[in-house]
Amino acid sequence: MRREAVTKTQKSAPLFDRLALIGVGLIGSSIARAARAQGVVREIVAVSRSPATRRRVAELGLADTVAETNAAAVAGADLVIVCVPVGACGEVAREIGPHLRSGATVSDVGSVKGAIVRAMGPHLPEGVHFVPAHPVAGTEHSGPDAGFAELFVGRWCILTPPEGTAPAAVERLAAFWRALGANVESMPAAHHDLVLAITSHLPHLIAYTIVGTADELAEVTRSEVLKFSAGGFRDFTRIAASDPTMWRDVFLANKDAVLEMLGTFDEDLAKLTRAIRRGDGKALFEHFARTRAIRRGIVDIGQDSPAPDFGRSHAELAPLPRPYAASSDD
Amino acid sequence: MRREAVTKTQKSAPLFDRLALIGVGLIGSSIARAARAQGVVREIVAVSRSPATRRRVAELGLADTVAETNAAAVAGADLVIVCVPVGACGEVAREIGPHLRSGATVSDVGSVKGAIVRAMGPHLPEGVHFVPAHPVAGTEHSGPDAGFAELFVGRWCILTPPEGTAPAAVERLAAFWRALGANVESMPAAHHDLVLAITSHLPHLIAYTIVGTADELAEVTRSEVLKFSAGGFRDFTRIAASDPTMWRDVFLANKDAVLEMLGTFDEDLAKLTRAIRRGDGKALFEHFARTRAIRRGIVDIGQDSPAPDFGRSHAELAPLPRPYAASSDD
Repeated sequence: MRREAVTKTQKSAPLFDRLALIGVGLIGSSIARAARAQGVVREIVAVSRSPATRRRVAELGLADTVAETNAAAVAGADLVIVCVPVGACGEVAREIGPHLRSGATVSDVGSVKGAIVRAMGPHLPEGVHFVPAHPVAGTEHSGPDAGFAELFVGRWCILTPPEGTAPAAVERLAAFWRALGANVESMPAAHHDLVLAITSHLPHLIAYTIVGTADELAEVTRSEVLKFSAGGFRDFTRIAASDPTMWRDVFLANKDAVLEMLGTFDEDLAKLTRAIRRGDGKALFEHFARTRAIRRGIVDIGQDSPAPDFGRSHAELAPLPRPYAASSDD
Repeated sequence: MRREAVTKTQKSAPLFDRLALIGVGLIGSSIARAARAQGVVREIVAVSRSPATRRRVAELGLADTVAETNAAAVAGADLVIVCVPVGACGEVAREIGPHLRSGATVSDVGSVKGAIVRAMGPHLPEGVHFVPAHPVAGTEHSGPDAGFAELFVGRWCILTPPEGTAPAAVERLAAFWRALGANVESMPAAHHDLVLAITSHLPHLIAYTIVGTADELAEVTRSEVLKFSAGGFRDFTRIAASDPTMWRDVFLANKDAVLEMLGTFDEDLAKLTRAIRRGDGKALFEHFARTRAIRRGIVDIGQDSPAPDFGRSHAELAPLPRPYAASSDD
């Protein structure tokens, strides 16, 4: 069915008719809340593998319909977003492939993109637009209760469409994410995986490591670690509290890039360790002064606030930023 | 001059007559603000090596008197708190030693305690109570404008009195910190340095390292690192923005404990790296699930809030929690 072009006066015209969300955790439920708040889809169908989650989604009223199976969820949907851990995406694609409507857009929210393209791509039929996406936003909480509509405001969403994807389908998904408050950028999947290896995956691995180290020490009790965590440790525990399944999959799926970044990190840590061992105050001071400038850069571009609240309390869901102009291949 | 015992009805009776603050950065200026707000000292004298800081302290009205020299600042003070970087504490002690009033308490706020005891102790005359202290609180900002009265509320302040220190002097300083909202604990300096090596010094070193690593990568631009920092990296930049001079001194002064913790961390990181290389999802999941529980412990004991604001927006300066009972050796 062909959509009519939306004129400037129809600001709240939905970008998609039916959004199917497969998986309704922190990210999926935040998309549901934001998409509804912004009126960017006419109807939301949600599905979860877990009966308890399906019940909770219904109780929270996050979707118009809660489906029982992935196949049922995608029937008739013109936008399908797979919001399950990276390692489960291939299997979901295999299940939904035969049931996708021609012309539908299939996307995901995985923190790794190369592995997703390889796992999902082969199961998606001709005539379906595959536009992998990664909203770079999150908290350490999980599940449908953890989501909130403002999660994506001012955050980046990276699209990694495989070569040959219809530009109009990419733009339509970009408009969807902009309507949810995100900034959108496109890049090749391989580059995404390198960038995220250093900005996200390595920080998580390091945080997971040090929190584990602290817990195993013979000289220092866990109670002491907890009590005196305000000295810096606390900031690591937040990200080391993120969903274990999600992160296991991230490290398995982005192994090469993570190992590459780890190699560089190890060298740099050895350099600073040597400076400490040798009492080289000048080298330490110079390194520390440089990293302070990088922090200022992050505050300057609005990815954090100078106040220590992760910038979130300032987030507001803006009204739909621009009307959707239907494109000719829609 | 002997103080009269304070009765229960004199709730706001000052704990000390004259507080001398040597150094008025984030911590010193927060002490000044909190001590005045709580009425725990009758008078505040502040001094800074930098004329610009002295001017700013006067403009902000943080002290009753702004002294020109350390010697002048401590004259007549019954509490002296040295709030300068760890590496400068020994020199300050040498300067003030001859000018300290008999019966005065001398303390500090350094993040390392063994080195402070060794550097300051020899310069302090008989009849002066030396009670090193470490308020485990801070932000990534520096200078007299960065301080605030609530900084210590709900945080821990660790006292490390050398053996033989008069218990009454220790208790009087503990009462001072409790009046500023802190919880107080005493332990040997050497144990403090181990505990803080893992809860504070190592996290800072790791954060400094990874922020530096990210900035040096050839494949990923600084602009990309900044833009996509919400994926986890951002939380590291906050602590890697802390004062470079302070942290240089911390690593030089607590070298042994930091190197010991670094050794354990390196082993643990190698273990997780190996799990990634081998695709051992079970080992990764188990490690990640364990660290999540530690985070919950920190939230449970009130050292952070479940909301990502570092718990600070909830801090309130409580009224003076208990009247000070003057002790016989005062």
